[in-house]
Amino acid sequence: MIYKAEVRIQLKPGVMDAEGETVQRSFRLLGFSVRSVNSVRVYVIELDANSEDDARAKAVDMCKRLLANPVIQDYFIKIEGG
Amino acid sequence: MIYKAEVRIQLKPGVMDAEGETVQRSFRLLGFSVRSVNSVRVYVIELDANSEDDARAKAVDMCKRLLANPVIQDYFIKIEGG
Repeated sequence: MIYKAEVRIQLKPGVMDAEGETVQRSFRLLGFSVRSVNSVRVYVIELDANSEDDARAKAVDMCKRLLANPVIQDYFIKIEGG
Repeated sequence: MIYKAEVRIQLKPGVMDAEGETVQRSFRLLGFSVRSVNSVRVYVIELDANSEDDARAKAVDMCKRLLANPVIQDYFIKIEGG
C-alpha cells in the first residue's frame, strides 16, 4: 500500500539557525516587527509499506540514514493514507 | 500581542523539484521503495500584531515581499496564539 509520510526536520533548541537569522534580518530591513524566525525543512514522501507502523519505521530509517543529522536536528514524522 | 505564523512554501504542481528528486534518487540507492519526494520549506515566525487577521495579513505580506517566488511557489499560512 502507498502511504504518505510527512517528515519535519528542524534544528535542536540552541543550535544556530543561520537561515532563520538571515530571514529575520531581512524582515527587519523591510520594516516588519519580528521576534524570531525558525527555518524547518519538510519532505513529503510517498512510500510503499505494509502498514502504518511499517511506513513509520521506514520513515524513521530514512531520517536516520539520509535526511537528518542527529547531532543538530530533531525529526518528527506524520503518516497518512494507506 | 505576539502571534506565531507558520508559513509553508512549496513548489507549484508541475514545477521541477530538484531537491526532492535528488532525495528520491538517494533513497533508491539505499534500497527504499519510494514513489515521490516533495521538498517543502517552512518558516516559523513570531511576530507582533494587533489581531489574528492582522498577523495573517503581515505573514501574507512577508511571503509576497521576501519568502515566496509567486511564479513557481505556493504559500500556506497558519496563525497560532495571540
